[in-house]
Amino acid sequence: MADDRAGGRVPFRVGLLGHGTVGGAFAELLAERAGEIERFNGRRPVVSGVLTRSRGAFEEILAEADLIVEVMGGLEPAREYLLQAMRAGKHVVTANKQLLSQHGEELYETAREHDVRLRFEAAVAGTVPVVRVLEESLSATPIERIHGIVNGTTNFILTEMTEGSSYAEALAEAQRSGYAEADPSDDVSGRDAAAKMAILARLAFGSPVHLNDVRYEGIEHLHSNDLQYARELGLGLKLIGTAERRHGGLSISVYPTFLYSGHPLAAVSGSFNAVTVESETITEITLSGPGAGGLQTASAVLGDVVSVMTGGARPPAPPLPLPLVEDVENAFYLHLDVADRPGVLAQVTKVLGEHDVSIKSVVQRGLGESARLVMVTHPVLESSMSAAIARVGEFDFVRSTPRTIRVIEEEFV
Amino acid sequence: MADDRAGGRVPFRVGLLGHGTVGGAFAELLAERAGEIERFNGRRPVVSGVLTRSRGAFEEILAEADLIVEVMGGLEPAREYLLQAMRAGKHVVTANKQLLSQHGEELYETAREHDVRLRFEAAVAGTVPVVRVLEESLSATPIERIHGIVNGTTNFILTEMTEGSSYAEALAEAQRSGYAEADPSDDVSGRDAAAKMAILARLAFGSPVHLNDVRYEGIEHLHSNDLQYARELGLGLKLIGTAERRHGGLSISVYPTFLYSGHPLAAVSGSFNAVTVESETITEITLSGPGAGGLQTASAVLGDVVSVMTGGARPPAPPLPLPLVEDVENAFYLHLDVADRPGVLAQVTKVLGEHDVSIKSVVQRGLGESARLVMVTHPVLESSMSAAIARVGEFDFVRSTPRTIRVIEEEFV
Repeated sequence: MADDRAGGRVPFRVGLLGHGTVGGAFAELLAERAGEIERFNGRRPVVSGVLTRSRGAFEEILAEADLIVEVMGGLEPAREYLLQAMRAGKHVVTANKQLLSQHGEELYETAREHDVRLRFEAAVAGTVPVVRVLEESLSATPIERIHGIVNGTTNFILTEMTEGSSYAEALAEAQRSGYAEADPSDDVSGRDAAAKMAILARLAFGSPVHLNDVRYEGIEHLHSNDLQYARELGLGLKLIGTAERRHGGLSISVYPTFLYSGHPLAAVSGSFNAVTVESETITEITLSGPGAGGLQTASAVLGDVVSVMTGGARPPAPPLPLPLVEDVENAFYLHLDVADRPGVLAQVTKVLGEHDVSIKSVVQRGLGESARLVMVTHPVLESSMSAAIARVGEFDFVRSTPRTIRVIEEEFV
Repeated sequence: MADDRAGGRVPFRVGLLGHGTVGGAFAELLAERAGEIERFNGRRPVVSGVLTRSRGAFEEILAEADLIVEVMGGLEPAREYLLQAMRAGKHVVTANKQLLSQHGEELYETAREHDVRLRFEAAVAGTVPVVRVLEESLSATPIERIHGIVNGTTNFILTEMTEGSSYAEALAEAQRSGYAEADPSDDVSGRDAAAKMAILARLAFGSPVHLNDVRYEGIEHLHSNDLQYARELGLGLKLIGTAERRHGGLSISVYPTFLYSGHPLAAVSGSFNAVTVESETITEITLSGPGAGGLQTASAVLGDVVSVMTGGARPPAPPLPLPLVEDVENAFYLHLDVADRPGVLAQVTKVLGEHDVSIKSVVQRGLGESARLVMVTHPVLESSMSAAIARVGEFDFVRSTPRTIRVIEEEFV
């Protein structure tokens, strides 16, 4: 581990794995900021080696580096390279959320064992410094809950849909604007957000969380109707990641969710990301900013490099496993298309009541022969809600599959 | 400097100066979190001594501490204690914004000289970790501008006024709710916000900034009318601190300011604080959270203590002086009560034009014999605007002193 900071003239050597959009932007930004960084920290960072698909040899780059930056993506060989680097006593900085959410514990354990730094601000929430804030706050503040909009692509699509576009139009627009990939499935399925929530949950609660521990649902199956109701009710519909303590365990999920308009995440639009951290001692803080473009990601990576250079990074905390809690309470929005005849509402509410689903508000609208029932429930166990909906769906007067969407905050409606 | 972390069993001794609301909350929180902090960091923090007005001797407390926490407030003897502590090789954590904004350079210089940490997250913006984010980002990202709502008292009062209260009613309510002191002048005059902006400007730009370098204006002279127009135009009126690079120098100010409703600070209501950081590489990030209550401040102080324990704090950067720029461009809202007769608008706009004040939008409302002219200008030098207003005020058809309020963002109106 080259940590000889006494001389003040020895350059700090960064080995760069990957030279695509992010890697290229990082190398440029580093060159641009090297003088300023040296002025503050006494050492000048330099890119001492670059690995791409066609050039460079990992072992040589490793031997010549004080720190390895990994922006190649994918599970392998990224995982193997990072493990090797840490075993060789080198610090590492990565932007690889898939790797961290699936092999995080192995990486954290290796960093602890070899007393090197493992930094990954760029893996979550673009430029929003939530990783750093959680890391630093963890032992001073017991965190209760995190809510996040951690995928800019889906937030862009939902914002477009709120303004009247269909899902297909919004997706096409996102692709044209460079916010969505040609194959958008990782984003729109909620899987990308789930990976980020796994990483944040580990940071916030110390418990090992794997991507597979996160329940998630994407935005592909939302109806334009849902957005229309949201607009009418003054609500925002967002893809919200949640990681929280419940019943002595942890619950981590990503779902399309209604937010009342006063919620700090309701105003986050376009490709922006935002995270709200709740704790008894700090109440609630919100961090927001643009989702990750190449330059923003590069900037976050460089921030991590500087943290390591200044000794301002800490080793990952040892794990403190908590049980996963899958069946948690949520308020729900419930949408039913029913035949417009007497007794329908009574029969529906009776079944809901039998499953402990208590109604907070109801709007019924006649549409000729049929009617639309829109309800908001008080918080209820997800299992109870599912059972109730299954029963309601069996009524002959129910004309399409009942739709539910989660709702955050009491202040709703 | 006791920095023997190898043993892992040596407690980390904190000397506490001040045991009022914040000091008491800090001691309690530290005791509550000590186990968790030890688990993560290997050392257990303990309060090794407490200085109050009636008990404790500073020299003894100093001798027995690894770190000094100063939450007594005021300039002296806080300044002298912190200097002595650092000269003795002890780290210090303070929540004292007045001290930092008036004697910051002396403190930073002493910290650098003796290679100790000087942390002050709690001095600015309550629980919002803006100090940490600026410190860490500084060398990786050239910051262009900071906008902040950094005084919870005035934001609470403005929020109440927006909902219809008069200034006097809103202030009384703030005092009843514990958001304003019996003597609120430090808050409502803008001086408290100015001190915080001085501290943030130093962090963001590296240039020494004294409280006296900050131009500021408070909220005492706002009319209910101003709030009414703001509401009608869909605008928020906030007390906004600004620190920004302009013409190769720095401009730092605090003014009541109109924000268009899409601005990230427009939605910050009640006693919340928020800071927006703009830079080319990160675009814009916003941090928001509750202003400082005793527990929140204590939590921020403890976060700083943990940062020092983990080596996760850096020495203050050496100063890089930039000239102060006082005459900067701003868009303005201009409110004139005039006699309702032909030619008035033409004469006003002619004078404005002669001073390079270009009008973006005008609303004229007849009120019987008189009329109200409300205009928004394009950005113009403050000196030009002042000169123009002085001339306009001389017209005999102008019936009260012209009122101007600054406006942020092109998207206004």
